[in-house]
Amino acid sequence: MINEQTKGVYTIAVTPFLPDGSIDWDSVDRMVDFYIEKGASGLTILGMMGEAGKLTAAESEQMVARVVARSTVPVIVGVSAPGFAAIKTLADGSMDKGAAGVMVAPPGSLRTDDQIRTYYRGIADILGDIPFVLQDFPLVTGVVISPSVILQIIADCPTCMMLKHEDWPGLEKISALRAASDAGARRISILCGNGGLYLLEEMLRGADGAMTGFAYPEMMAQVIAAAATDIERARDIFDAYMPMVRYEAQPGMGLAIRKYTLAQRGVIAHPTLRKPGAVLSDAACQEVNALASRQVARLRVLGL
Amino acid sequence: MINEQTKGVYTIAVTPFLPDGSIDWDSVDRMVDFYIEKGASGLTILGMMGEAGKLTAAESEQMVARVVARSTVPVIVGVSAPGFAAIKTLADGSMDKGAAGVMVAPPGSLRTDDQIRTYYRGIADILGDIPFVLQDFPLVTGVVISPSVILQIIADCPTCMMLKHEDWPGLEKISALRAASDAGARRISILCGNGGLYLLEEMLRGADGAMTGFAYPEMMAQVIAAAATDIERARDIFDAYMPMVRYEAQPGMGLAIRKYTLAQRGVIAHPTLRKPGAVLSDAACQEVNALASRQVARLRVLGL
Amino acid sequence: MINEQTKGVYTIAVTPFLPDGSIDWDSVDRMVDFYIEKGASGLTILGMMGEAGKLTAAESEQMVARVVARSTVPVIVGVSAPGFAAIKTLADGSMDKGAAGVMVAPPGSLRTDDQIRTYYRGIADILGDIPFVLQDFPLVTGVVISPSVILQIIADCPTCMMLKHEDWPGLEKISALRAASDAGARRISILCGNGGLYLLEEMLRGADGAMTGFAYPEMMAQVIAAAATDIERARDIFDAYMPMVRYEAQPGMGLAIRKYTLAQRGVIAHPTLRKPGAVLSDAACQEVNALASRQVARLRVLGL
Amino acid sequence: MINEQTKGVYTIAVTPFLPDGSIDWDSVDRMVDFYIEKGASGLTILGMMGEAGKLTAAESEQMVARVVARSTVPVIVGVSAPGFAAIKTLADGSMDKGAAGVMVAPPGSLRTDDQIRTYYRGIADILGDIPFVLQDFPLVTGVVISPSVILQIIADCPTCMMLKHEDWPGLEKISALRAASDAGARRISILCGNGGLYLLEEMLRGADGAMTGFAYPEMMAQVIAAAATDIERARDIFDAYMPMVRYEAQPGMGLAIRKYTLAQRGVIAHPTLRKPGAVLSDAACQEVNALASRQVARLRVLGL
Repeated sequence: MINEQTKGVYTIAVTPFLPDGSIDWDSVDRMVDFYIEKGASGLTILGMMGEAGKLTAAESEQMVARVVARSTVPVIVGVSAPGFAAIKTLADGSMDKGAAGVMVAPPGSLRTDDQIRTYYRGIADILGDIPFVLQDFPLVTGVVISPSVILQIIADCPTCMMLKHEDWPGLEKISALRAASDAGARRISILCGNGGLYLLEEMLRGADGAMTGFAYPEMMAQVIAAAATDIERARDIFDAYMPMVRYEAQPGMGLAIRKYTLAQRGVIAHPTLRKPGAVLSDAACQEVNALASRQVARLRVLGL
Repeated sequence: MINEQTKGVYTIAVTPFLPDGSIDWDSVDRMVDFYIEKGASGLTILGMMGEAGKLTAAESEQMVARVVARSTVPVIVGVSAPGFAAIKTLADGSMDKGAAGVMVAPPGSLRTDDQIRTYYRGIADILGDIPFVLQDFPLVTGVVISPSVILQIIADCPTCMMLKHEDWPGLEKISALRAASDAGARRISILCGNGGLYLLEEMLRGADGAMTGFAYPEMMAQVIAAAATDIERARDIFDAYMPMVRYEAQPGMGLAIRKYTLAQRGVIAHPTLRKPGAVLSDAACQEVNALASRQVARLRVLGL
Repeated sequence: MINEQTKGVYTIAVTPFLPDGSIDWDSVDRMVDFYIEKGASGLTILGMMGEAGKLTAAESEQMVARVVARSTVPVIVGVSAPGFAAIKTLADGSMDKGAAGVMVAPPGSLRTDDQIRTYYRGIADILGDIPFVLQDFPLVTGVVISPSVILQIIADCPTCMMLKHEDWPGLEKISALRAASDAGARRISILCGNGGLYLLEEMLRGADGAMTGFAYPEMMAQVIAAAATDIERARDIFDAYMPMVRYEAQPGMGLAIRKYTLAQRGVIAHPTLRKPGAVLSDAACQEVNALASRQVARLRVLGL
Repeated sequence: MINEQTKGVYTIAVTPFLPDGSIDWDSVDRMVDFYIEKGASGLTILGMMGEAGKLTAAESEQMVARVVARSTVPVIVGVSAPGFAAIKTLADGSMDKGAAGVMVAPPGSLRTDDQIRTYYRGIADILGDIPFVLQDFPLVTGVVISPSVILQIIADCPTCMMLKHEDWPGLEKISALRAASDAGARRISILCGNGGLYLLEEMLRGADGAMTGFAYPEMMAQVIAAAATDIERARDIFDAYMPMVRYEAQPGMGLAIRKYTLAQRGVIAHPTLRKPGAVLSDAACQEVNALASRQVARLRVLGL
């Protein structure tokens, strides 16, 4: 089970598809192994970058079962949905299968602090004792959650164990939350997203790790490990990956880039996104290739 | 099956719940009978006002089965979902059970004309020969569809049989579409929503009827019938219902008002919305009651 | 000066234009006289429906000078702008010319409660002792302000004297604010907008009057006067205007309808909106005419 | 005058303020000199990052006069405003003072292709023969403009000379526009924004240069110069600045970071943003300092 102290890298998993759009189960297994080998301390499936919204309810259940069975590290399941009934059904089913917790993003219709707070009280209520992650991703959800509201949710909901932090800009939010827990508020785990674009600064502000799916997930493990002992080396590693991190961070295109790289690395068999989804142009593939080849050279200099 | 000539009143059905939030199947049956008795030429279920997003996939299937089995008029099923897989699953299941067509609203992420057109081409492709309704409801979806884009979709997708019209303002859109079909574009059915707030003008602009769920659905049948023969009487009827139509048209509160009235009329057993959902205050209930009692008096004068 | 007890009808004034788009000063004078004759206890100029955003800074100053000089009732000036400097310049200039207060809507970039509260603290700070109106119009601004935030602004800003209420739905908000002031919070004036569509219910919930620009502004004065003594007669009057109120309430088209009616009534010389602005179709003009003629008949029955 | 072939770096200028919020004219002069010394082939003032919305109309005129008088390179003036009258007034005044063109972003209320196209036809009409830049920045404006709409605007408006490109992702858009002009559409200048985060790829896709305000504007000139002769060196330079480019790219915080750096470099006297504006925390200042010091070292290796 995830808890308030959970640390490390929770890799956001893609959902691999065959060219006909059906789930590629062999690639699912290979991907789970790959993420763990590259330093994942946990996995997060059925998130936005897992194309969760494009799966049927039955497929979602199958994906949970497959990944949980294969994984040797804890698995968090994204259960966001327009209504509580679907959320509860998937959450209960996931925990039954052995998941370590669930993640819930706010629906785009929420606007005021009261609405957000009330929503998460409702979520905590229907989830019962299932530990959950608050996903804070305004660029996609359109819902802006201020630090004071996060603190209210933490106070209201003892089962809120973790913040998936991807507000942008978000560094001050980490500082504000850590200042509050230093002053007595309940401390929860903060794992950061945004493709890793600010990972180094996030760790220095007090984050517990990363929850993102950059196609070189070893970056997150390497930076976090180095940050604990040799900050200049952590910066060197971080900077070496930076041009690619930045390129993959393009919204709308990012998942196609990520899947292209994972396919190039032999992790998944096909770069296919389920429809409707972006398709990478030849020019974009060449841009990725050029970035990858220079990245190899930079990492070699660092002995990686 | 719905087709390009479909006319009349397709009542948007609520989904009745018991106080504990489970579906109230007895009320479902009673509601189907009531709508048909009050002049529905068809029913539309699992729309936004049917709280479709709050149902599990299994419940949606059960609702379709129950209503189709009970109804003596055609049933359209709302199948909007974030991804094509869920849409196809529910659409296929609904048609197998005897539905007359499906309805699809655009996802809120669509912005440009190209994106909207591409989306509906994708929808038509996965639906195969299932006739579908294009739901145009910018106030809720955030997606604004211009008349030229609707005409492109009509040209692209031979299975697009109907527009659920609830752009606001939307009267010029009806005129533009009818001018286009008069000039040779394929003509499709236009049924209008917005709680009936502009029904009379919509009929005069060329609409084929209403698709909305005002808690006095006899209003739509009465106005449409009268409009064909005696426009002044149609206006008298329309105006008699207007204060209530306006009151129910409050977004966010509208469904709670509608269910309160349906419960007061004995159609459904409980006014319950599934969580998260609005709850009517005492003051609001009294406002509805005051409007209802004056409405009775006005209708009596009209012999209704 | 407006204050916490301000009551009655503050008519939202249009800005009349000549067909070439320049301001029609003769019509401005005639309009001021007309509004006052029809029962305005105050005027609000340079609001959204005054096409404030389409005027140059110089024209705004001229409009304030002209209306304040002509009016025998207090004038509130809309001063909303992207930055504080423009707000302060227009506010100071308006008060120097004799305005009774200013009105400020929140910029669309505000999202959280903290952001909204901080914004209005900044507004109060730059305005100094100028009394101001908080304009709460989420449909247009996109900023949703919960009752608790309004109460915080009231507590933070002693110069906030009035709420222009046009949240939708908004009846519960009036009740919540009045319950709070009954319990000891500072009471401010609440004048309601939304074209008058809910005026009767708003008065019963505790509003102090209307601030809206329906093209028959006598409606607001008549309903408010009757509501104080004979609620059934107030309802009769309100219902008589309802079909037209509803028709004018179409967003985007509403101002064109309003100006058409004001021109038909001889108040302004031309129905012109400054570009870019909506133009009424022939069909729409006929719809307005039909509604107007039936309205005359209904009012005659009421002795109005 | 800007034209369809304009190339190079048009630096987006900040507006320097004194701590009391008034414009710091000495810093304005120093900034103009600095930008030109660092390779600007033109300047763009009164853009979003120039805090244009926070200036009064009079201040905007003064800023144009001051910069145009000082600058030895062409000056583009941002004239975006809610209405045509303010746009025309500032545009005419700017050209009279010697500006080389104006820039117009779409108002956030535009949604459909038709609305966007109609808006720019209106803009071209009121601007007469003033050459203008179409600013395409959906992240801030909320208006998504597809390549086909840009091409329609180019066809409709012969005075549209340039695209300020900062759609995100936007690389495919550059390719699409260049493919269209290769196939016969009118070719216009494309200068890219987004803080330079994708500058290298943008140049390779066919952009004519940069229009952005990264606090090390020499980066843009250096990368563009190198890209023409030695692409690997261009990549080396680009990568050396990347961690800082990324850090400054944080929306909402970016301008405060930029002004802090410009103040640190001695270009402007104070990092002040006019209210309401972000203030940099101590932690953020230290992050900038750390990035700057490593950047110096990397550039030294490159002989820069």
